[in-house]
Amino acid sequence: MPTTTWNRHHVLSLADFTAAEYDTVLQTAASFQEVLSRRTKKVPTLQGQVVANLFFEPSTRTRSSFELAAKRLSADTLNFAASTSSMTKGETILDTAKTYLAMGTDIMVIRHREAGVPNAIAAEMDRLGVKVSVLNAGDGQHEHPSQALLDLFTICTLIDPNHPRLELLKDKKIAIVGDILHSRVARSNIWSLTASGAQVHLAAPPTLLPKLFAEYVLEESGGERAGEAEEAGGEEVVSISPSSQILNRQLFLHWQLEPALQDADFVMTLRLQKERMTAHLLPSLREYHQMFGITRAKLQLCKPNVKVLHPGPVNRGVEISSELMDDPEFSLIQSQVTSGVAVRMALLYLLGSGKASGI
Amino acid sequence: MPTTTWNRHHVLSLADFTAAEYDTVLQTAASFQEVLSRRTKKVPTLQGQVVANLFFEPSTRTRSSFELAAKRLSADTLNFAASTSSMTKGETILDTAKTYLAMGTDIMVIRHREAGVPNAIAAEMDRLGVKVSVLNAGDGQHEHPSQALLDLFTICTLIDPNHPRLELLKDKKIAIVGDILHSRVARSNIWSLTASGAQVHLAAPPTLLPKLFAEYVLEESGGERAGEAEEAGGEEVVSISPSSQILNRQLFLHWQLEPALQDADFVMTLRLQKERMTAHLLPSLREYHQMFGITRAKLQLCKPNVKVLHPGPVNRGVEISSELMDDPEFSLIQSQVTSGVAVRMALLYLLGSGKASGI
Amino acid sequence: MPTTTWNRHHVLSLADFTAAEYDTVLQTAASFQEVLSRRTKKVPTLQGQVVANLFFEPSTRTRSSFELAAKRLSADTLNFAASTSSMTKGETILDTAKTYLAMGTDIMVIRHREAGVPNAIAAEMDRLGVKVSVLNAGDGQHEHPSQALLDLFTICTLIDPNHPRLELLKDKKIAIVGDILHSRVARSNIWSLTASGAQVHLAAPPTLLPKLFAEYVLEESGGERAGEAEEAGGEEVVSISPSSQILNRQLFLHWQLEPALQDADFVMTLRLQKERMTAHLLPSLREYHQMFGITRAKLQLCKPNVKVLHPGPVNRGVEISSELMDDPEFSLIQSQVTSGVAVRMALLYLLGSGKASGI
Repeated sequence: MPTTTWNRHHVLSLADFTAAEYDTVLQTAASFQEVLSRRTKKVPTLQGQVVANLFFEPSTRTRSSFELAAKRLSADTLNFAASTSSMTKGETILDTAKTYLAMGTDIMVIRHREAGVPNAIAAEMDRLGVKVSVLNAGDGQHEHPSQALLDLFTICTLIDPNHPRLELLKDKKIAIVGDILHSRVARSNIWSLTASGAQVHLAAPPTLLPKLFAEYVLEESGGERAGEAEEAGGEEVVSISPSSQILNRQLFLHWQLEPALQDADFVMTLRLQKERMTAHLLPSLREYHQMFGITRAKLQLCKPNVKVLHPGPVNRGVEISSELMDDPEFSLIQSQVTSGVAVRMALLYLLGSGKASGI
Repeated sequence: MPTTTWNRHHVLSLADFTAAEYDTVLQTAASFQEVLSRRTKKVPTLQGQVVANLFFEPSTRTRSSFELAAKRLSADTLNFAASTSSMTKGETILDTAKTYLAMGTDIMVIRHREAGVPNAIAAEMDRLGVKVSVLNAGDGQHEHPSQALLDLFTICTLIDPNHPRLELLKDKKIAIVGDILHSRVARSNIWSLTASGAQVHLAAPPTLLPKLFAEYVLEESGGERAGEAEEAGGEEVVSISPSSQILNRQLFLHWQLEPALQDADFVMTLRLQKERMTAHLLPSLREYHQMFGITRAKLQLCKPNVKVLHPGPVNRGVEISSELMDDPEFSLIQSQVTSGVAVRMALLYLLGSGKASGI
Repeated sequence: MPTTTWNRHHVLSLADFTAAEYDTVLQTAASFQEVLSRRTKKVPTLQGQVVANLFFEPSTRTRSSFELAAKRLSADTLNFAASTSSMTKGETILDTAKTYLAMGTDIMVIRHREAGVPNAIAAEMDRLGVKVSVLNAGDGQHEHPSQALLDLFTICTLIDPNHPRLELLKDKKIAIVGDILHSRVARSNIWSLTASGAQVHLAAPPTLLPKLFAEYVLEESGGERAGEAEEAGGEEVVSISPSSQILNRQLFLHWQLEPALQDADFVMTLRLQKERMTAHLLPSLREYHQMFGITRAKLQLCKPNVKVLHPGPVNRGVEISSELMDDPEFSLIQSQVTSGVAVRMALLYLLGSGKASGI
């Protein structure tokens, strides 16, 4: 395990993550990735600790990934699913969280349909002066930090499997394509990828990527927007620097796919909620796929070794062609899932052992 | 662990609990409370044993508490939820229980909407001559023994943290306020608290506390009712003694809140099911709160150090004011949840190790 | 543990099981049955391995049995239930399976409403060159191998508890009664029981046992049908041999119950889905019970020591009389459930340790 100091008590957002914190997560995850390649994929690190998965919004994939990560650290796990819960009985979310606190939970992994719920719970825990940690597993359209960290880990380990670190992405071109506006995954990825010094290019139809999107994002973190938006031919380019203490952040917005793909090193696609159709934000899935769906043909614009990511579950033939999704030469989708367990082990470890007296 | 003999094979009701049994539970729970304050909150006591949570009525809070208690004793747990079960396939409840028996379950924790189901299952297990233990986790409006035991533990450890025991409650005044009629929690608490020699004062509107309530309760246990009901100004007072072999039981009924609160040491509030409204048993939640809801102002009637309990989940602003619920000076609600894990560990331990050959 | 070589990587069907494989499962299960009689019913065999229960069709009983088997081998378990899953989000079944693969699953236990799903997933795993094993926990009307193996184990251990083996069934007469047509349990049992050299007699109304049933079954395995169907008095008799490399298979079809019960050693009853009624395949449950329901009176036709099996859950008073079901002299139903855990431990062990390098 890396010896770097880790002082963060909750993981709620990547907006204020430091380069040192990213690197600690990456290196810790790399250690666990190695554990996962052994026959006995288990370590006793969190034995006797309790990880409660409080999923107020249903999820199989992310919940399973966190559950497995916790079990491989030998923690005991509790699963809370909103449907069968006392939420329907008039209890507030904070009451539910405090109940799990009182039962002796050490780490709460929280997913909620509303942005800000994990922050509110973390604030309440801090107010109470208790040591429980809160890990945001996706809140509304706000953030999904563990997903962005696993994406980062997937990309970095591809470049240097033995020593994944943030600086490997410096000046790489990364396209994020799809429903940016509603995506908590995109939000978290924008923080991590721009922090690395990569050039991040967002591409989506205007209804899913409003002109002011970048400003919204920056306001949130209190960053300054140095560059000016230049509009040219249905395309908006925003160059932003310096938004944080670490690195210049380079963020560009496009209403067409091609300029984002041009010479890209990585293409991150986002899940398209079919509800967007009924909300008249999209013409049809077929048209969307023609314009913004990723195919082998469109990847010709990118660098030769380009790789494609998707947080899953994929709508085959919408965000990405079915053929491309299954092509191991281009697709990192399976690696992302595998990285997910290692990265979540790293996060649980860093939060859990921070509370330890003797470690 | 206390060395007291424990001969009880099932925990179905507190009606016939002896003082020695209460004390054994309290002392065992105190030992586990100490375990829970360690970093590694786990003991190997029930390793290799199987605890099946058969929750025919959905519950998150109680199920999680039992699940965690079992895991901290290193037992394997199985969760059965009625919704996804073969109950819809025409199998009887006894068939389901016998299936879990045949799989090798050691302890069955059972919750059911109907009163008497845990008793029926326990009777069947005894008839079959098997060693499996049944623990009632709430049956209809009958009993909820583990809840009353955790309430008892919470109160006793407040008085003497190192040596919680039944006699600490002698002559304390304890008010139980709310929907007594429909509450299995109230039923179980009446048994444990009157057994301790405390003065138990029930307060509720007449629709939720019928005149004959005390007689029903007593009939059930075969106790004798020595005192006579005296009705005076909309208030009924029943003094009962001696109903059991242990102690004189003092039980008083009130249709107004004030006489119950007067000089009370503890106030136990009960959850109000909102269905009671539609059944015309209550005027409105607002009116209920005005008359029977507990607030800081109303607590002025009680002893200065009065504490308030609630089994949860709380309808804030109905049974108890939101402000009071969050006030650590008065509220024991969080302690109750914490006690719940320790008390359930104690119960599982006492039932589970009773079956042990080598311990 | 037996030292017999086991080369099978998936358990999808019993159609091509060899006598040696049956015997390996039986002997391994017998070892685990012994473990289950100890106080600590747990072995560290699969520690650090992950068993994912992917139940696309809901099931409590089978899922609990597999979960418990996995836990007793010290594996970590993940439960996937279709209702709360991303299946509704447009992902294919293969995508879901690949996600669990990528998370590090070692064995997938799969149940699905559609026949062939476990085979399709296993084929994909093989195509990908990964070591994950697939265990069919029931697919449509195709097969339910672990159920048939536990039935076999139940019968064989009754005959010789210390050394259960296939040859014990040679020339035993076994009746399978009920909804043969729609039963995956019947399909799998036909393979295992005929492989043993037992005489297998199927009995059902013509709507639930079509004339061509035996041919369908045989075609599937590429077996040859040597005998000719003889129709006589509403009864069809098919004698089939040799369908496989092991033994002559003896399979007989009856549209009446009596010839199947005559001198039978074992009677296996099948669950009747109440949906069959609405599909006009049955007159009424009452009439069905009169004609094909098993009662003590009807068992007079059988051998004196006849035993009755049912895969559960039972519709009491339909497939079998309530009284008979609870009669330990005749009913093996509880033993079947107990055997289920031992047999599933054996299957998980054989698949899981096959992947081991060091064992």
